[in-house]
Amino acid sequence: MIKTPSASYSILIRVEILTKPGMLGKVTSGIGKGGGDIGSIDIVGFGKNTTIRDITVNVADVPMGEKVVDRVKRIKGIRVLNVTDRTFRVHQRGKIEIRNKVPLNTREDLSMVYTPGVARVSLAIHEDREKAYDLTMKKNTIAIVTDGTAVLGLGDIGPEAAMPVMEGKSMLFKEFGNVDAFPICLRTKDPEEIISAVKWISPGFGGINLEDISAPRCFEIEGRLKKELDIPVFHDDQHGTAVVILAGLINALKFVDKRFEDVRVVVSGLGAAAMGSIRLLLSFGVRQIIGCDRTGILYKGRKENMNPVKRKIAEQTNPEGIRGPIAKAMRGADVFIGLSQPGVIRPRDIKSMRKNPIIFAMANPVPEIMPEEVGSYARVVATGRSDYPNQVNNVLCFPGLFRGVLDCNAREINDEMLFAAANAIAFIVAEDELREDYIIPGVLNRKVPETVAKNVREAAIQTGVARWEHRYFSF
Amino acid sequence: MIKTPSASYSILIRVEILTKPGMLGKVTSGIGKGGGDIGSIDIVGFGKNTTIRDITVNVADVPMGEKVVDRVKRIKGIRVLNVTDRTFRVHQRGKIEIRNKVPLNTREDLSMVYTPGVARVSLAIHEDREKAYDLTMKKNTIAIVTDGTAVLGLGDIGPEAAMPVMEGKSMLFKEFGNVDAFPICLRTKDPEEIISAVKWISPGFGGINLEDISAPRCFEIEGRLKKELDIPVFHDDQHGTAVVILAGLINALKFVDKRFEDVRVVVSGLGAAAMGSIRLLLSFGVRQIIGCDRTGILYKGRKENMNPVKRKIAEQTNPEGIRGPIAKAMRGADVFIGLSQPGVIRPRDIKSMRKNPIIFAMANPVPEIMPEEVGSYARVVATGRSDYPNQVNNVLCFPGLFRGVLDCNAREINDEMLFAAANAIAFIVAEDELREDYIIPGVLNRKVPETVAKNVREAAIQTGVARWEHRYFSF
Repeated sequence: MIKTPSASYSILIRVEILTKPGMLGKVTSGIGKGGGDIGSIDIVGFGKNTTIRDITVNVADVPMGEKVVDRVKRIKGIRVLNVTDRTFRVHQRGKIEIRNKVPLNTREDLSMVYTPGVARVSLAIHEDREKAYDLTMKKNTIAIVTDGTAVLGLGDIGPEAAMPVMEGKSMLFKEFGNVDAFPICLRTKDPEEIISAVKWISPGFGGINLEDISAPRCFEIEGRLKKELDIPVFHDDQHGTAVVILAGLINALKFVDKRFEDVRVVVSGLGAAAMGSIRLLLSFGVRQIIGCDRTGILYKGRKENMNPVKRKIAEQTNPEGIRGPIAKAMRGADVFIGLSQPGVIRPRDIKSMRKNPIIFAMANPVPEIMPEEVGSYARVVATGRSDYPNQVNNVLCFPGLFRGVLDCNAREINDEMLFAAANAIAFIVAEDELREDYIIPGVLNRKVPETVAKNVREAAIQTGVARWEHRYFSF
Repeated sequence: MIKTPSASYSILIRVEILTKPGMLGKVTSGIGKGGGDIGSIDIVGFGKNTTIRDITVNVADVPMGEKVVDRVKRIKGIRVLNVTDRTFRVHQRGKIEIRNKVPLNTREDLSMVYTPGVARVSLAIHEDREKAYDLTMKKNTIAIVTDGTAVLGLGDIGPEAAMPVMEGKSMLFKEFGNVDAFPICLRTKDPEEIISAVKWISPGFGGINLEDISAPRCFEIEGRLKKELDIPVFHDDQHGTAVVILAGLINALKFVDKRFEDVRVVVSGLGAAAMGSIRLLLSFGVRQIIGCDRTGILYKGRKENMNPVKRKIAEQTNPEGIRGPIAKAMRGADVFIGLSQPGVIRPRDIKSMRKNPIIFAMANPVPEIMPEEVGSYARVVATGRSDYPNQVNNVLCFPGLFRGVLDCNAREINDEMLFAAANAIAFIVAEDELREDYIIPGVLNRKVPETVAKNVREAAIQTGVARWEHRYFSF
């Protein structure tokens, strides 16, 4: 078991205790002798002549937890059924639920939310399908869709194991964007089947957030769904990351006084997040990007370790056709964006960059290069971690982005909307607040989703992809 | 627009008003002159030089509502954008939402519900998939799946138009069973595609409730899914109706002192609800059932208007091989169960039945025969309507049934569990309370779902389909 980073550690012990006097006392004193501090004790069930209880115990660390459990196990008449830690307890039985928004207490309530009243509402939508936006949860609901193939850094762990992550994502959507996001974890890895599944379930949703689907399958799936669905489709691993990186870069370049069209950007990694970022930066106006992967620098005509998306990106990047290892790309570069793995660059690579280098080292949990190693060479350093300054975290983007999208019933999410989101995030850090350790706002800053939503909605209306506008003027 | 049955009627008028002094006053006095009583006034948006407001107006009936709207429309500088009635307002933007069950206020909260803490939880499920029942929303979540082909009495109105009904169903699941039921309205009518869709989305759900899928497609879909999924699949139109009918019949036969094995039951209609009911009654011990449809009595070897399910039921019913119109079946019958349409039987058919006839006339909204017409011929009359005694309503079954199923992580729903549900519903009406107008408890009686859940859970454990039991003893 991985150690939790938090100082305190608390465990929940489920024990089956023989139902006779004094037994519970033996358990509690055993826990005390092991060093544990007892919190709540709850009865959760009964066996034959036994009582099943959940006991919460605060301990200092994992070894102390193990010692406490050992002590309890050694008591006669006691069976330890399960031990969970505090984080596990937060996840127990799921972290989200469905709630009714209107009361259901009387026969009259019933006749309005269900039969016979609901028939009129259904017929109204049958006559005009777009009315689903006014009269159903489609207005505020999106699906978080995954096949569990690229979950966090854990890889292909399957749809059930992906659930806790998707539920967590749903919580973030609700808390920061007031978006109802429902997890759909698919038992299929076939791109065609995933595309079909999403299309079939789409009528009840106002948008689709694709999540943790491995590259390069994710590109095909997202591209097809964008074309074939009339609701917005967003692959957060690609575009959410890209938006926050762009936001950070807007502020970082402002801080070092360089322009997007002048800088050379090296991107390490050619997975979903990297591809999304390269695409967005190109669209935003960056002229020189050099992508690198395990094989080295990506160039037009490269043969090894390619796929259709890499081939396409090779056409649009590395205009000078540089070949070789990443160290060669770093020479004279202005910006390094790491979306790969620890150790791919060294301090001397940063020394070889142009003046005031900007380093975004976002491999998780261990960055491409640790901020401590970068020392004084780099001017601005950002990571994906919460324990260093300038955390690049998608949560700065997706809740506000989808809030804006749903507010205007947008048909799609275009680059102007992504730029609007990035500008909103960057804008939260006022010009006179900008410092090397403050180019990206904090993840709990509530102004971020609010500003992102407003900017995104306005961009959607201006670029003509907002349904709400259309409906409004058509009345 | 259909008239609402409720005495009061209230409408919501969305108006665009020129932003200049005195305009709102003109609107409110216009409403007053039309006879309307103004409730709340809210600003919902702004146009160029205009303000958009929602005005709630209580009126006596539809004509008065129209008069009020006409008055407002005639005011210069005012544009009526939309008029909705109270029922519509209840449905606006959907009737259900997602809520977080644990707080998300601090960085520590974030690190437990999402990265990095969530990784440990995901890995635990990756090692043992069954742990999804402990650590995710699968424990308490089901999908309400429809293709929108047989919604209420409205027929094939499509997946978007089915949403208000499925959301209403979800509300009932939550209110009466504390079950989190999420609507999935599919944009496909192909049985194979529906089966695939449900299988692919199944990992996050603890059960599947099929709803309003037209017959005979629903039989194939349900049958296949029951075989191919390891979570319970329930087609409410078939089995929910069957359970409540069985519950009513248990009490009605007790009341007239007849036994299941002795009675002859005529079932009018051979759709989903009828097939489910015939199947369950046979399994419960009824020996003589005669099914009828538009073509007349169903018998073994009939050629016209057949399908595989009718053929199968023909083998198991009508042991004497009676042929002809429904009137012939009614002669000497004890019970009539109508799941068809108004007018299929007449008072003289009831006169031809055996002593103390029991009539369940459940066509909606107009029963096969109105209780008034049955007069004194029938001993017990039940309908699907809330304005007559003995309402047969599925809500008596499905919330409690799924509560029981989820409590023990049942793998399937078997007949013993359906019998347990029916017995629980019947049991709520105590023997000394039984009257011809009280054989079925009221839909808002909270004891019903509670008792159903308990009985169903116990039946699941006794028949060995409860996962919880298994896991408990395997520790």
